[in-house]
Amino acid sequence: MGNTTSIRVRYQETDQMGVVYHGNYFTWFDIGRTEFFRNMGMVYTRLEEEGILLPVIEAQCRYIKPAKYDDEIIINTKLVKLKGVRLEFEYSIYRKEDNELLAEGRTVHAFVDKDLKPINFRKKYREIWDRLGENI
Amino acid sequence: MGNTTSIRVRYQETDQMGVVYHGNYFTWFDIGRTEFFRNMGMVYTRLEEEGILLPVIEAQCRYIKPAKYDDEIIINTKLVKLKGVRLEFEYSIYRKEDNELLAEGRTVHAFVDKDLKPINFRKKYREIWDRLGENI
Amino acid sequence: MGNTTSIRVRYQETDQMGVVYHGNYFTWFDIGRTEFFRNMGMVYTRLEEEGILLPVIEAQCRYIKPAKYDDEIIINTKLVKLKGVRLEFEYSIYRKEDNELLAEGRTVHAFVDKDLKPINFRKKYREIWDRLGENI
Amino acid sequence: MGNTTSIRVRYQETDQMGVVYHGNYFTWFDIGRTEFFRNMGMVYTRLEEEGILLPVIEAQCRYIKPAKYDDEIIINTKLVKLKGVRLEFEYSIYRKEDNELLAEGRTVHAFVDKDLKPINFRKKYREIWDRLGENI
Repeated sequence: MGNTTSIRVRYQETDQMGVVYHGNYFTWFDIGRTEFFRNMGMVYTRLEEEGILLPVIEAQCRYIKPAKYDDEIIINTKLVKLKGVRLEFEYSIYRKEDNELLAEGRTVHAFVDKDLKPINFRKKYREIWDRLGENI
Repeated sequence: MGNTTSIRVRYQETDQMGVVYHGNYFTWFDIGRTEFFRNMGMVYTRLEEEGILLPVIEAQCRYIKPAKYDDEIIINTKLVKLKGVRLEFEYSIYRKEDNELLAEGRTVHAFVDKDLKPINFRKKYREIWDRLGENI
Repeated sequence: MGNTTSIRVRYQETDQMGVVYHGNYFTWFDIGRTEFFRNMGMVYTRLEEEGILLPVIEAQCRYIKPAKYDDEIIINTKLVKLKGVRLEFEYSIYRKEDNELLAEGRTVHAFVDKDLKPINFRKKYREIWDRLGENI
Repeated sequence: MGNTTSIRVRYQETDQMGVVYHGNYFTWFDIGRTEFFRNMGMVYTRLEEEGILLPVIEAQCRYIKPAKYDDEIIINTKLVKLKGVRLEFEYSIYRKEDNELLAEGRTVHAFVDKDLKPINFRKKYREIWDRLGENI
């Protein structure tokens, strides 16, 4: 099950190759995650207020075609794994105009507290955990 | 009295105009400030640890010639004003190769605590204040 | 006459102060400009394809209250001046939730060609010029 | 064989977690690559002027410990593969102070021309190719 959101490419996101700088796709994955959580009724800011952080411990992107300034971009976000201390997402980036696949990526996250120490999320937040589980 | 530091332009800092994206000069001013403080024997991280933040309340830049990828850049930073709750810096950005002036800027900062409430810095941190005063 | 567009604050746009990094407001002004042009029926990418660039030659921002992660932000963009080789915009940044004014800014632009040489825009592109003039 | 360069973490690179935003490590890898080429006597800007671009077609990072504002960072860059149309680099990111490994990454690049079409680099630029080959 996935969540879909869209953005428009910013001038600031381009580089002198005339396309979006490759590092910026990770920011887009992040936007996809935020909207994935919102869609589940979990606002990520609220998680952080409760002291739960989800830092990225692994990130990956495969670039297929370049995104360009002012393109409308679709970000598709899927939760693909949920283990005791980890969460894994997959992303597909499409150009809206012609539905062309531009990039695919993956991020792995740890559940940690404000001091960046791992939390056993399943134990401490069983309800949220179960809700996440239903969205895989 | 000023402080001088240098950086090299990153690919990520360029945009599709083939030059440095204008918003990035504010990041360079920030680097200049960090080094200004270090040069005075004040590490900005330590200020933050003590609960003193210096958010920007005004920022300005005048762009003269564009900086390009891989250019070596000189950042010149001067403290120009110091009042009860405010601090003001001026910056000059030069291309090292030919000493050409590329941009000039200014930032105004407030002294605030971790909740972003103003602090009367002169009163609470007289020693640092006096040290800053000697550097105008 | 102004143009209004909205964005949501990205995690990547925050800094360790827990608020949006001040340099990012210039990216938001840029988004406002893109939408201002689109709203007039002028797509900025098309201007660039025709060899007209609008580099920023001056930029300024006054920060009133901090924007935070996940805030919905309104960007209000106004064209305020149009001279032979220059264009000037003003921006207001609001938090959507309570319509609070967060920042105000200004950018000045030159009309240049692909080699960053000034163009007498009024002469060469009279029709676009006139259309811009109606939007002040 | 590797190349080593160092940077200092910028305030702009942090996020509200109080550490470097994960997407910024890809910018650091980029800096590592630039210095790798310079060290071989090949300036990357000159490659681009000759019409050779090296867009990233795959990027990956594993985050071990977070980098923080003002940390001095060592970027170690190794060319690990060189095939007809591809180039592959590996990176290690260390904190200078205690030589702690913070992250490891990898980027794969294609040789393309200005229209982003693949070039048979070995054939067209045999001398540079051979020089690169000696640096694996």
